[in-house]
Amino acid sequence: MKAYQIVSGTSIAGLEPVERAAPTPAPHEVLVRVRAVSLNYRDLMVARGNYMVSRNEPLVPCSDGAGDVIAVGSEVSGFKVGDRVIGTFFPHWVDGAPTPQKAAGALGAEADGMLAEQVALPESALVRIPDHLDYVEAATLPCAGVTAWNALFVEGRLKPGDSVLLLGTGGVSIWGLQLAKAAGLQAIITSSSDEKLVRARELGAAATLNYRTTPEWQDEVRRLTDDRGVDLVLEVGGQGTLKRSVASTAMGGTVAIIGGVSGFGGEFEPFALIGGAKRLSGIFVGNRTMTEDLARFVGVTGIRPVVDRVFDFTQARDAYAYLDAGRHFGKVVITVGD
Amino acid sequence: MKAYQIVSGTSIAGLEPVERAAPTPAPHEVLVRVRAVSLNYRDLMVARGNYMVSRNEPLVPCSDGAGDVIAVGSEVSGFKVGDRVIGTFFPHWVDGAPTPQKAAGALGAEADGMLAEQVALPESALVRIPDHLDYVEAATLPCAGVTAWNALFVEGRLKPGDSVLLLGTGGVSIWGLQLAKAAGLQAIITSSSDEKLVRARELGAAATLNYRTTPEWQDEVRRLTDDRGVDLVLEVGGQGTLKRSVASTAMGGTVAIIGGVSGFGGEFEPFALIGGAKRLSGIFVGNRTMTEDLARFVGVTGIRPVVDRVFDFTQARDAYAYLDAGRHFGKVVITVGD
Amino acid sequence: MKAYQIVSGTSIAGLEPVERAAPTPAPHEVLVRVRAVSLNYRDLMVARGNYMVSRNEPLVPCSDGAGDVIAVGSEVSGFKVGDRVIGTFFPHWVDGAPTPQKAAGALGAEADGMLAEQVALPESALVRIPDHLDYVEAATLPCAGVTAWNALFVEGRLKPGDSVLLLGTGGVSIWGLQLAKAAGLQAIITSSSDEKLVRARELGAAATLNYRTTPEWQDEVRRLTDDRGVDLVLEVGGQGTLKRSVASTAMGGTVAIIGGVSGFGGEFEPFALIGGAKRLSGIFVGNRTMTEDLARFVGVTGIRPVVDRVFDFTQARDAYAYLDAGRHFGKVVITVGD
Amino acid sequence: MKAYQIVSGTSIAGLEPVERAAPTPAPHEVLVRVRAVSLNYRDLMVARGNYMVSRNEPLVPCSDGAGDVIAVGSEVSGFKVGDRVIGTFFPHWVDGAPTPQKAAGALGAEADGMLAEQVALPESALVRIPDHLDYVEAATLPCAGVTAWNALFVEGRLKPGDSVLLLGTGGVSIWGLQLAKAAGLQAIITSSSDEKLVRARELGAAATLNYRTTPEWQDEVRRLTDDRGVDLVLEVGGQGTLKRSVASTAMGGTVAIIGGVSGFGGEFEPFALIGGAKRLSGIFVGNRTMTEDLARFVGVTGIRPVVDRVFDFTQARDAYAYLDAGRHFGKVVITVGD
Repeated sequence: MKAYQIVSGTSIAGLEPVERAAPTPAPHEVLVRVRAVSLNYRDLMVARGNYMVSRNEPLVPCSDGAGDVIAVGSEVSGFKVGDRVIGTFFPHWVDGAPTPQKAAGALGAEADGMLAEQVALPESALVRIPDHLDYVEAATLPCAGVTAWNALFVEGRLKPGDSVLLLGTGGVSIWGLQLAKAAGLQAIITSSSDEKLVRARELGAAATLNYRTTPEWQDEVRRLTDDRGVDLVLEVGGQGTLKRSVASTAMGGTVAIIGGVSGFGGEFEPFALIGGAKRLSGIFVGNRTMTEDLARFVGVTGIRPVVDRVFDFTQARDAYAYLDAGRHFGKVVITVGD
Repeated sequence: MKAYQIVSGTSIAGLEPVERAAPTPAPHEVLVRVRAVSLNYRDLMVARGNYMVSRNEPLVPCSDGAGDVIAVGSEVSGFKVGDRVIGTFFPHWVDGAPTPQKAAGALGAEADGMLAEQVALPESALVRIPDHLDYVEAATLPCAGVTAWNALFVEGRLKPGDSVLLLGTGGVSIWGLQLAKAAGLQAIITSSSDEKLVRARELGAAATLNYRTTPEWQDEVRRLTDDRGVDLVLEVGGQGTLKRSVASTAMGGTVAIIGGVSGFGGEFEPFALIGGAKRLSGIFVGNRTMTEDLARFVGVTGIRPVVDRVFDFTQARDAYAYLDAGRHFGKVVITVGD
Repeated sequence: MKAYQIVSGTSIAGLEPVERAAPTPAPHEVLVRVRAVSLNYRDLMVARGNYMVSRNEPLVPCSDGAGDVIAVGSEVSGFKVGDRVIGTFFPHWVDGAPTPQKAAGALGAEADGMLAEQVALPESALVRIPDHLDYVEAATLPCAGVTAWNALFVEGRLKPGDSVLLLGTGGVSIWGLQLAKAAGLQAIITSSSDEKLVRARELGAAATLNYRTTPEWQDEVRRLTDDRGVDLVLEVGGQGTLKRSVASTAMGGTVAIIGGVSGFGGEFEPFALIGGAKRLSGIFVGNRTMTEDLARFVGVTGIRPVVDRVFDFTQARDAYAYLDAGRHFGKVVITVGD
Repeated sequence: MKAYQIVSGTSIAGLEPVERAAPTPAPHEVLVRVRAVSLNYRDLMVARGNYMVSRNEPLVPCSDGAGDVIAVGSEVSGFKVGDRVIGTFFPHWVDGAPTPQKAAGALGAEADGMLAEQVALPESALVRIPDHLDYVEAATLPCAGVTAWNALFVEGRLKPGDSVLLLGTGGVSIWGLQLAKAAGLQAIITSSSDEKLVRARELGAAATLNYRTTPEWQDEVRRLTDDRGVDLVLEVGGQGTLKRSVASTAMGGTVAIIGGVSGFGGEFEPFALIGGAKRLSGIFVGNRTMTEDLARFVGVTGIRPVVDRVFDFTQARDAYAYLDAGRHFGKVVITVGD
């Protein structure tokens, strides 16, 4: 079968198409024909060597894939041939709080990932795709969708009517916007592009902010919320944003940090958290239960995840480079197979 | 000023229009000109004498009113003349878990209520009306709206995508339906009228059940949920419903009982809760924070509460009788003043 | 190897010692040499045929066993030969909320249980024994200990300083008492024996009630709590207790029903839950995470579970009969092996 | 009556004894004869002018006082003359999440505080003293005790058996140790003094660490917890501690920052929170409900707060200087009145 592999640290150029032996499922495993893979900023970090990858051998990259079941191991009871599925980011983190054991073996970093025609995964690492989604859309759930879900509804414990600030229009932020809108939250979103902000309003943003033209956007966030601040900020990283995110947060509120784009500047002052009774919460994607809950919610509300651009399997490097350029709105996806 | 009063136990016929001295606000109180009052089943119980009313003197009935501020006491800081407000069901239950002290003095039962041209209430017993609602709509929030909010999001702890079963099309159930839809939940609703079920679908019900033609509706609920059952039932009472409600509930789920219409039959077997790890939760309306949270959510999502019929102040007895007839869909409201 | 088996419904007399082939562990399984088994009221129900048992063939009874690892399957990573372990009540309910799938295969009912010299269990169904406990003590954790833990700290969400009412001095109630004392809760306990109440005080009960001499014990509970009521009742069943338990509960509090001894009388009125904002919660033992949390707590606090009496493997029927007589204080245990 | 006053920013030397008119209670207020006042690091910050104080006039300092009721306003229903009471840190934050309105008027900073012979406070700002405590002990609850309670059981959501790391032996840390011990938690504590560590063990610390002799104490914390880390760190501030505190925390755990002693160094990297799914939570003392919950817990468990040294009313400056020297173990208290 066809696959891509990469040695972490060799950069996008190190991504190479290879022929590999098709996997055979162990008794508790399911064999999935991958149809689409979505990219995450973390995949760029793996390529560059600044993500936690423990091995030096070539690795099949990417955590997020969708496909259909083509074979099941002898002990599998929850899936059958033909089922449409996505994988979970952490194959061993099924439920509850994380532990190092549960977080071990993340796809596309510690274990081979999804950028291959076929993958074998334990049945506990698979979740059914909501009926109304195609494979391209479904491939956006495992990392970006689940991260936004965890931040808003698990760690952030937002209730209907709460407010959330989304920074930029990348995959997680646009997922956050769609989830917020469908769950009855008030979403405010930032971008440097007025054109993207128009699209964000069409997706349901209650207010938008151009951080180029409004560099002190935290003041505007407070103004928009009657000086209360938002209940949650989905902080995706960036020079100088953390301080503003904390200032944008209501008393008792949460800044969910999901890392990524360009690190955090050193200007953060922990003292600011005390007088506001605020919390800074690290979000490490999420578990299988969250993935199932997200899939169920998407099914109930009919959300269609925003896909910015779809690349062919042969164009994987272009897809990486396109994500790296940072001009996308929503997710970047690579199709696999015919 | 004009008002109605009733001695608990004298039934609807005991409701009499009277002239009373207009109240003057104490230092922490706000004087409200009432514009609309909504009825609840509990007001019928007060009239009949089967609700917890401790005094024998005439009482101004009704817990739910909306109006505008016409004067404020010397210590009031949160409201000013002209503000549009609703009262809270329990004037002294501001936040946190209930206690007998907080639950004392409920409007229209232990203390004079809202069916009067003017009322003076502590500022902690008032909440601002969402901008897009008129007084008639706003008057439906304090008891029915808050009860549904408490059941779904506080006691029921539902998360987006969860499922809820609503019994009948009374005020609390229709509020439950509107909240569920706007918060991304899957709602199933029952009625004996196919016509009402059509309206419920228009309001966002994912599935409907006619309990006349489907007397074993719990089986149908299970079928509609892949045999899982719903995460929450909003149990409004009725002969023989409780047993079916418990059977309709998913493992680990909740039956929220809000009492009312016709009591509960004696057929309930607590043992059924154990093997299903289910819970039966009494819902006693809710506190001011819940009322504020509800008002905020209504404002963010633009919900317009369903009002079945509006009666004139002079027709208060007709309004009571209409509610008692049980043919309504949503809320019954009485306007006050010109 | 030696074991006992029983056909559900044949009563204690149906319990028979047999010779069975020793199990061999599958790749993910661990082979445990059982050293002690504790009895639960549920084991009497299995014997009598009034517990959910789906098969008619003989079954190895009992859910609760402790022993040491004597072999591990090829895929086992968390245990090694010599480790001291207990099994979990539900081998497949690892974490999170229950589902029918997770609750399937309960030991000693749907699957063969622990009253055998050797058992093979998936490694996810085992938990390490706290160092200071011997096998007899450790055998009391899986059902009785976990049920009390779940009721108090998971479903009941008690916080330090809260109050709990324990009914009687059976295994779950005495576990509840020991947990309450070690976690800084105020425990009140009932019994018909003043002698047992003295022992309960020695274990840390803040107050005791003889329900023979104080038949209206709910009034006394309220008196002892400044008329507030307790935050949680651990309701183990019994004629007429449920109504009193609800009356003993504080506003906003919980009656955790764990079923058992003699069913519930029909006198319960759901309406009573509403005005008190109370909840009635079915407790279905618990999952592996709860078992681990309990074991950790026992280790941190040095709790030694109260064992009433220890029987020899050959005396299994006597042990059952002794439990059935209902005169115990704490747990009844059967030793296995030499 | 006698009192002390200070203009914020004039340092300890600015603290001056004055004669002031005794207050008279408004209708909802209670007049308290203060008997003891405990000091907090925050009182030093007020003196130095680096705490949020909005006025330039002289201020009666100190948030924490205990005394007895000598008069009640006409509307007061919960207290009577002779009741023994403590004040709450924020007189207007009764329950629920904080808001700027609720947090306004903190005693001894925005409003006159407790270092006076008499104070008049709203009845909602008072909590009854547990019977077994004297005034000196009771005076330690409002700020230090409540802060530790909030960090451990409200924001930290610790359950019995969880582990907590306490930094140093100041008032909040020793309160944290006593609460942890009484609630069945595993406590680890640090100090630069082996003598203090011996005392900490006597109070129930499971393990102790001398941060002088073990500068890389985070490694030792991980070793003591089987490389898991602790569930909560009570971070009181200090150069370079935050980075180590985060490293000491288990996956999914919390670093509760309560600020204080010497600020936080700039070396903290938010990225570290993500891979560990950790959270950094600002603790802003707490509300009246937390104060009541703490008082109840202290009553149930018989905790006697550790008081390091008691100063006479005339020695208030000495007491401040003693706290400033930082050699205390537990709380520093000033007695008031005869």
